[in-house]
Amino acid sequence: MTTELLPVTKRTRVHRLRERQVRDRAVLYEILDGGLVAHVALCVEGEPMLLPVAYARDGDRLLLHGSTAAGLLRAVAGGAPIAVAVTHVDGLVFARSIFDSSMNYRSAVVFGTARVVEGDERVTALRALSDHLMPGRWDEVRPPTARELAATLVLALPLDEVSVKVRTGGPSAEEAADPAIWAGVLPLRAHTGEPLPADDLSPDVPLPDSLRAARRRHVPATTAD
Amino acid sequence: MTTELLPVTKRTRVHRLRERQVRDRAVLYEILDGGLVAHVALCVEGEPMLLPVAYARDGDRLLLHGSTAAGLLRAVAGGAPIAVAVTHVDGLVFARSIFDSSMNYRSAVVFGTARVVEGDERVTALRALSDHLMPGRWDEVRPPTARELAATLVLALPLDEVSVKVRTGGPSAEEAADPAIWAGVLPLRAHTGEPLPADDLSPDVPLPDSLRAARRRHVPATTAD
Repeated sequence: MTTELLPVTKRTRVHRLRERQVRDRAVLYEILDGGLVAHVALCVEGEPMLLPVAYARDGDRLLLHGSTAAGLLRAVAGGAPIAVAVTHVDGLVFARSIFDSSMNYRSAVVFGTARVVEGDERVTALRALSDHLMPGRWDEVRPPTARELAATLVLALPLDEVSVKVRTGGPSAEEAADPAIWAGVLPLRAHTGEPLPADDLSPDVPLPDSLRAARRRHVPATTAD
Repeated sequence: MTTELLPVTKRTRVHRLRERQVRDRAVLYEILDGGLVAHVALCVEGEPMLLPVAYARDGDRLLLHGSTAAGLLRAVAGGAPIAVAVTHVDGLVFARSIFDSSMNYRSAVVFGTARVVEGDERVTALRALSDHLMPGRWDEVRPPTARELAATLVLALPLDEVSVKVRTGGPSAEEAADPAIWAGVLPLRAHTGEPLPADDLSPDVPLPDSLRAARRRHVPATTAD
């Protein structure tokens, strides 16, 4: 774990509510490791485009992947600057005024230019992407064929320039607020439902380790069942 | 409920996996009404910027709000084209190959230019924003003061040009797949924890209606407790 602080740049500096800016890389890694979908923004002919994608953190870089047939991803592969956000909503903050009502959240926005992952590194990167969503699944199922690999674009974005913002805790204290009005936080978190087996599954096939691991990864221990 | 289909434009046409494109406005409304945070993308000096914001749907427009001191929101208020995404991840799809592994999701990306909501319409819009997150909270707490209103920027974006994509169901069938390998879907959904009262709350204050309503809104009935 690196102890280097995230640099503050023109793009990552938080101007308002500066106390919410976080420069600790450990917090960044926790945000990225706990998410499932990132939103990728880029400019095409001066206008913003936005697409949700699966991703994974691999050390100090973010991996993205998609089809080689996806036009926006090809633009990213071609060197278009991107901004990539991962956001968690952790709770609704019930204050005693509408103005102070808020959300607890953790968000990371990464800025930069992605490079195409090529050669032997591709399989390693795809495995990292698979392991992020379904830890260990790679060893349970058929690996990608050469044809499938050729249809997959893998991109790597360094975690060099990142804006991390976090709000935690209860409503901000207001003078003269009425303590008889309920105030506090309604926590929100991810939860998994009962696994739904495929129609053609043989009887009595036990749940795979990767599914149990995905449940543990994507559900906080307090609500896992 | 309008039955008019979402128009397909250069920006909203889905080129890959076209079967995932949805043109039904009812699906769009459900995606927007069920979310808490939208990601707003815009281009600043040719480079993409991205910020997570609270939002609400109000009829056939999207409302966004933030501080008048937020530079990016001021750029949006000034007429910068934006793209706004709301995405739900509904499940992890465990296929029998890495390539077919997937996620079930519903996503909406709205394109356009927002206008500043002014005059009497501002309070109505702020109430819609409040009601989206915490239904009925407006009547339980102190309303905004003139000073708080002056510090708040409210923006409206028409739901004219929207790309909606949905993936549902189990893993895609693969010939010669081994039915003895577990395949299926791990459903994911939002869940609320136990409410955390503020430090200064008087004893025996019951949970407010708005909190119960927020729980019902943000948690599917099957997991609400």
